[in-house]
Amino acid sequence: MSVADGETGPCHDTRPPKGDVTKAMRAAMKGQRPRLLWLTGLSGAGKSTIANLVERKLHALGRHTYLLDGDNLRHGLNRDLGFSVADRVENLRRAAECAALLVDSGLIVIAAFISPFRAQRAAARALVAEGEFVEVFIDTALSVCEARDPKGLYRRARAGLLPDFTGIDSPYEPPEAPELRIDGNGLSAEDAADRILAFMG
Amino acid sequence: MSVADGETGPCHDTRPPKGDVTKAMRAAMKGQRPRLLWLTGLSGAGKSTIANLVERKLHALGRHTYLLDGDNLRHGLNRDLGFSVADRVENLRRAAECAALLVDSGLIVIAAFISPFRAQRAAARALVAEGEFVEVFIDTALSVCEARDPKGLYRRARAGLLPDFTGIDSPYEPPEAPELRIDGNGLSAEDAADRILAFMG
Repeated sequence: MSVADGETGPCHDTRPPKGDVTKAMRAAMKGQRPRLLWLTGLSGAGKSTIANLVERKLHALGRHTYLLDGDNLRHGLNRDLGFSVADRVENLRRAAECAALLVDSGLIVIAAFISPFRAQRAAARALVAEGEFVEVFIDTALSVCEARDPKGLYRRARAGLLPDFTGIDSPYEPPEAPELRIDGNGLSAEDAADRILAFMG
Repeated sequence: MSVADGETGPCHDTRPPKGDVTKAMRAAMKGQRPRLLWLTGLSGAGKSTIANLVERKLHALGRHTYLLDGDNLRHGLNRDLGFSVADRVENLRRAAECAALLVDSGLIVIAAFISPFRAQRAAARALVAEGEFVEVFIDTALSVCEARDPKGLYRRARAGLLPDFTGIDSPYEPPEAPELRIDGNGLSAEDAADRILAFMG
């Protein structure tokens, strides 16, 4: 171990000197604008389905994308985290930091997380440059999500088996000024994905 | 909060269904083979300088790269970590997980970390596919590193001010079978970078 190379100590600055490869250079090379599409909404709102469709459509347009969700993080970077409130907060903090690194690498990142609290989403927004964060509120009524209940989570939550379940006994704070609001009650996932692509231009 | 969307619980699998955008598709789009170049060596060995040159040269060839080092992680993802042995281990674990995500996104990732222990480097290797991990041992003699001492770290370590300093009072376990060994005593950083590029083909 060593307190050097920034690896183990704050005393060494390895930030690349000016003239090295920057986000702008990487993005220019690929002819795209890096973005962080942050899909937020209740469990069952349709975030993952829409996120996958958005990624497929962007890829078909030659865009370089990456999809971040609980799954690819919980099995790797965040596998040391449990499900306490503190660990859930840390889970989202790392997700946002990771997303920011991927955006810095020039990618269009699609992040799909319930992310129920405004402060969490604001923290993610603050990690990328002005205009790069696209908060997409997948606005699906609780009753609709609960009727879908694809994983039986609402049923278990109503039975008291899943404490602090968003929408049941833990609040979801809807975005006040999202870049985009998708009506998840009426719109198909396909149409929702098209609306997101149209917004991105 | 909620135990859904994989965000807060293991009960929901959001892994993209087959047919979605894969690493192979992203890599094909960019005409490059994703890799994790892992530069290991003592403090002062020249890792960061060489890593920066490698990135510049790869970028000039139209490759899409990302540089990961203690700096961009310690200021973000890993800013909750201190300098205890446990935190240093966690720092490298997250670095490797992050690098693997970036490789999964199709990039050529250049990671520069002292990473003194074989087990740490083996763990990083295990996170990417066969053939993707390129362990580059920047093999610079301790005496040379200590004579350079660009940040005065060795001086401070010898004075007992930096405990567990690699090469002084904490071991560096040299790679036994690195993909590439760079003689950091004789070779210029420029030549070292060229050798790495030649190896990558």
